[in-house]
Amino acid sequence: MSESDLWLLPDGVEELLPPEATRIEELRRQLLDLYHSWGYEMIVPPLLEFLDSLLIGVGRDLELEMFKVTDQLTGRLMGIRADMTPQVARIDSRRSHDVASRFCYIGSVLRTKSPSMFSSRTPIQTGCELYGVVGSAADIEIISLMLETLNLAKISPLHMDIAHVGVYQAILAEAKLSKIQSEELFEALRRKAIPEVDEIAATIPDKAIRQKVMALPRLAGGKEKMKEARKIFAGNPDIEYALDEMSQVAAVIGERYPEVEIYFDFCEMRGYKYYTGLVFAAYTEGLGQAVAKGGRYDEVGRDFGRGRPAMGFSVDLKALYRMGKREWAQPAGAILAPNGQDAELWELIRQLRRSNRVIQLMPGEEAGHWASHCDRQIVRDESGQWIVKPLTEFNPNHVK
Amino acid sequence: MSESDLWLLPDGVEELLPPEATRIEELRRQLLDLYHSWGYEMIVPPLLEFLDSLLIGVGRDLELEMFKVTDQLTGRLMGIRADMTPQVARIDSRRSHDVASRFCYIGSVLRTKSPSMFSSRTPIQTGCELYGVVGSAADIEIISLMLETLNLAKISPLHMDIAHVGVYQAILAEAKLSKIQSEELFEALRRKAIPEVDEIAATIPDKAIRQKVMALPRLAGGKEKMKEARKIFAGNPDIEYALDEMSQVAAVIGERYPEVEIYFDFCEMRGYKYYTGLVFAAYTEGLGQAVAKGGRYDEVGRDFGRGRPAMGFSVDLKALYRMGKREWAQPAGAILAPNGQDAELWELIRQLRRSNRVIQLMPGEEAGHWASHCDRQIVRDESGQWIVKPLTEFNPNHVK
Repeated sequence: MSESDLWLLPDGVEELLPPEATRIEELRRQLLDLYHSWGYEMIVPPLLEFLDSLLIGVGRDLELEMFKVTDQLTGRLMGIRADMTPQVARIDSRRSHDVASRFCYIGSVLRTKSPSMFSSRTPIQTGCELYGVVGSAADIEIISLMLETLNLAKISPLHMDIAHVGVYQAILAEAKLSKIQSEELFEALRRKAIPEVDEIAATIPDKAIRQKVMALPRLAGGKEKMKEARKIFAGNPDIEYALDEMSQVAAVIGERYPEVEIYFDFCEMRGYKYYTGLVFAAYTEGLGQAVAKGGRYDEVGRDFGRGRPAMGFSVDLKALYRMGKREWAQPAGAILAPNGQDAELWELIRQLRRSNRVIQLMPGEEAGHWASHCDRQIVRDESGQWIVKPLTEFNPNHVK
Repeated sequence: MSESDLWLLPDGVEELLPPEATRIEELRRQLLDLYHSWGYEMIVPPLLEFLDSLLIGVGRDLELEMFKVTDQLTGRLMGIRADMTPQVARIDSRRSHDVASRFCYIGSVLRTKSPSMFSSRTPIQTGCELYGVVGSAADIEIISLMLETLNLAKISPLHMDIAHVGVYQAILAEAKLSKIQSEELFEALRRKAIPEVDEIAATIPDKAIRQKVMALPRLAGGKEKMKEARKIFAGNPDIEYALDEMSQVAAVIGERYPEVEIYFDFCEMRGYKYYTGLVFAAYTEGLGQAVAKGGRYDEVGRDFGRGRPAMGFSVDLKALYRMGKREWAQPAGAILAPNGQDAELWELIRQLRRSNRVIQLMPGEEAGHWASHCDRQIVRDESGQWIVKPLTEFNPNHVK
């Protein structure tokens, strides 16, 4: 194996170096502070768990994306998390049953494959989840917090799709398709493959239902599409409930964030099958996939002994950094200190470090590398005292 | 599988819940700020890499501790990092060759087995590394930074062992043992198994060398042991160099941190075999293993095309938190807001969140859970304006 091969990272696996790492750390802190200011409590689920716990409640979609290893202590399979939502569900299931829980997290997840060519296999998943609350107030809170997250990273322009799994489910219940046909329809809708949807719809005898199925991929758009949907789907109370939710959420979010373009979408079937209600995704220019997404996944914790309403969103911190238009300030000027173990020099450096960056040069180290980062230096004055002076000329061996 | 099984985490795998997670986050930030104030630059190596890259330069000791997975894109083996030092060596090997590099990192590592019953399989490894500097100035800087780390976490009392791989290596060169005997001696010294060391020494014909080998596990202690060592090992320049380094470092560190008890140890063979010079470990009461450790591992980057001097330390952030005697302040009082989508209420909440924690209750959510966290509330005054008042009685449905 050649040296250059040893330097290579696997595809979709990135490292963060200076100054990127520091900037992403700044963004990380600001996001956690934002979530704190909304009353969301930080949790740090473990990177690996028994596979059964990680797959509970989310269907098997996630299984293909998950790296598995054997626990040498028990011989059982463990998974490296590919998504933190099942972990949050497990944690919520052990909490008091009577109150809403607000959780936030930031942590790495690993994926066997990138979901798309634009995405990482090692994203830093960042998200918030609200447990125990039904109805659109929770949807509005979570979407608002997602948009605050995107604003903080200065991601713009933004547009957001709002969909509702309830619409598709209600139509599916009316259409009485076979299991295979349902799966095919799900996939075709997910890809908005209109000819395939039409083909499946053609097998439905009832004309009214057939038209509803065919309408699903054709109804994406603004308020006028919502009006159209209300006509086409009229009479089904489940669908009307879903449309009401979508409209309510769009109205409040539109008022709070007028800069965000909101679209309704009736076949947004993204990602894992755990969603049960309103789902949403935010898009920006230059990224071929959603920059943030989420939805309602009531009952995700049921297999842990406690299903209850749940709503959340997640983003990849690295994508936020990459897509954001923030201007990063130059770090404040540092202080260069000469090498040497002089006790008074050490005391001064120690004091200065409480509110400054002080680089003490090592024997043989050139100041050159640091010159552009430093605006002050420590030198001895005439009386032999160590003092801080503006950095003009610097002699790293001054102490000797 | 029963529900309670699904809740179980594998042995040695922990999750962090509130308020622990928030406190560990505070510690994390303060440590990164500390390292920044010393001129150390943050890097975030990836959680997984090709196995060959992760094992380079560190011998095969680490291989047993590492989880392996197959890269589905290339079929090659990848490892989940069990230690970040090889990754830092890889990153350093691509940097400018002329300057010292100062790196810091905080991130999870995974281990197939806990190194001891006290330690985690999912530690949050935290450390600093200084590349490109020979000699004790670098040793002193890294040890000082390790002690600052422990001070920040309020870990006390502290004692520190200082050892030097050079002493053992020089004696091994004199003793001309077989490869198997050398391995046995290494293991016996590591465990300070005096009878076993004596047994191996008995096979050495030269009496003077035999006595040096037998002295190794018997010389642990303070300054008086260093004097003894100087007599026993006199005449070998490699050992004298090593003893000089140990003494110099102990003198400066003893002056800077008089509260830390310093011991010399001549057979501290901890951990991976990558160490090449001074090694050290810090201990505190109640933890059956080192709370922090490090040393010199010159040439660790050689297989990446660039061997150069390197010195570093690492700690487990979770152990720092657990063993530290910090008193954690109660979080500042939050503000409770009633539910509802009123635009003026939203504007007020949004403003307040810039410097406060505001929990907006959800429909049906009881204030009870939050009452102890909140000292203020948002209510309508007589004129219908939203105002902030001290929290006395709270009506979550006030808005209706």
